[in-house]
Amino acid sequence: MPDPALPRRVRVHEVGPRDGLQNEAAVLPVEIKAEFIHRLAGAGLDTVEATSFVHPRWVPQLADAERLYPMVADLVDRGVRLPVLVPNARGLDRALGLGVREIAVFAAVTESFARANLNRTVAESLALFEPVVARARAEGLRVRGYLSMCFGDFEEGPVDPARVVGVCRRLEDMGCSELSLGDTIGTATPGHVARLLTDLHAAGIGPDRLAVHFHDTYGQALANTLTALRHGVTTVDASAGGLGGCPYARSATGNLATEDLLWMLDGLGIETGVDLRRLAATSDWMAEHLGRPGPSRALRALTHRDTPTPQDKEP
Amino acid sequence: MPDPALPRRVRVHEVGPRDGLQNEAAVLPVEIKAEFIHRLAGAGLDTVEATSFVHPRWVPQLADAERLYPMVADLVDRGVRLPVLVPNARGLDRALGLGVREIAVFAAVTESFARANLNRTVAESLALFEPVVARARAEGLRVRGYLSMCFGDFEEGPVDPARVVGVCRRLEDMGCSELSLGDTIGTATPGHVARLLTDLHAAGIGPDRLAVHFHDTYGQALANTLTALRHGVTTVDASAGGLGGCPYARSATGNLATEDLLWMLDGLGIETGVDLRRLAATSDWMAEHLGRPGPSRALRALTHRDTPTPQDKEP
Repeated sequence: MPDPALPRRVRVHEVGPRDGLQNEAAVLPVEIKAEFIHRLAGAGLDTVEATSFVHPRWVPQLADAERLYPMVADLVDRGVRLPVLVPNARGLDRALGLGVREIAVFAAVTESFARANLNRTVAESLALFEPVVARARAEGLRVRGYLSMCFGDFEEGPVDPARVVGVCRRLEDMGCSELSLGDTIGTATPGHVARLLTDLHAAGIGPDRLAVHFHDTYGQALANTLTALRHGVTTVDASAGGLGGCPYARSATGNLATEDLLWMLDGLGIETGVDLRRLAATSDWMAEHLGRPGPSRALRALTHRDTPTPQDKEP
Repeated sequence: MPDPALPRRVRVHEVGPRDGLQNEAAVLPVEIKAEFIHRLAGAGLDTVEATSFVHPRWVPQLADAERLYPMVADLVDRGVRLPVLVPNARGLDRALGLGVREIAVFAAVTESFARANLNRTVAESLALFEPVVARARAEGLRVRGYLSMCFGDFEEGPVDPARVVGVCRRLEDMGCSELSLGDTIGTATPGHVARLLTDLHAAGIGPDRLAVHFHDTYGQALANTLTALRHGVTTVDASAGGLGGCPYARSATGNLATEDLLWMLDGLGIETGVDLRRLAATSDWMAEHLGRPGPSRALRALTHRDTPTPQDKEP
């Protein structure tokens, strides 16, 4: 008896190797990262954000992007999408030189975050992205636009949906084919999510062009995701094991864990193509390399040795 | 713009002093427990499950029930409900001797849990409760019935809603005025919650007589709660700081944390009468007495010293 308000299939946009690992201080060997991405794809994830072409000084963990990407590019031939983050024209050059087929740019909705993270105003940062996106599109690349601080901002408080709509429009006009709405500090609650998605829809930006990117800082990520699904969103960002967060937002610990998300989607009978047990084994393997367990609750329960775990299904 | 499908007010049934503390091995001084309950009531919680009149050998942490209850009974005069758990006739005698006004009994839906926890069949355990509830009702007490394993069971897998309906009916017939549906092992997902509440409603057991009691073992508790609210449930069990779980269910770590719940309810504009900041300060204080932080994500974020936390409100 599936809920008709919910989608039948959801695409999980796995951000662990990029958004997750970028916050890890101890730099992992490139071979481990390549194996991580292969294992994630092997678990059935068809979209894995692989790395970032930011300046190596900013994110030392991802300074090996040029070495990593060719080690995983075989997956693209097998139908796996491997987007990479690109902050500017120089990053795009590096990505294009490696044959990348899909990029993401990272915009801010609030002035305080744009200033702190990009050292620019919102308008300035969008102007900077415009030629990057245009060139990527001209080269035939697919471009995702990330929007950070779509709900709350540490300094500015709750964010007016109209501002999010405005940045979404600009990114769409540039040529972004998918917009990922980020709750960077994790303060959003379901009513706010419903309101933003309703306003975006009214402005002509439907859920088929949107993704949601929730952080679990206040434990709200899955309730917010459920709300987004009820509003027609079918692409959900998540991080294997709950790795990562935003290095620029204080205490913004924890992307939504892919395992917690999959437990819910499997229980709801929503197809993802992902094998939760294989994914959990992969996150468990990565946790050993990082030397500590991930924050995902479902991962912890699934990897607890003496716990049989009957998957929830409506009987 | 409140969602018309959601209630305007929710009663939080705080279970931290009983369900939370009963899993703590280190026995706290009774004075600390009394202060805990006073602080919880001071934060605005109008229902605090205070302790349990089980045999002291079973749950050493709650062996001080006779000493504790009189230390907090002043709250009852001030309108705070202080239910206590009562497992049998002997427990009821002890509770009545102290002037308790409200009790709870703890039933199981599945045979394997009834056997493991109560050493009886489901039918036998219900038969045992019958005279206890009858006598409590004759004494004018309000009686809550807990139902454990309403969704999944480690040995039996997904639980047929029809079995839950059957146990609910029996408990109602005995005289229980509120039924708390427990996801003891934390495996439930929102579709299953919707199905059970729909079936209960069809069987004449409406949401006004129900409470939900979710565990966050797989990270699903808040998404499940949101689903229950959409089905008209207005009483939600939660544990301050996320204390506790079920000592008899392996890995069943973590009741839904009251802070995570309140963050969502506040953001949705649903009244509870509880001051989240005062509650978080109380949980933080209890964590110091227990010597470790609680698992609540919102609590961790709220008590992180350098983190200003703008409450989510729809702007």
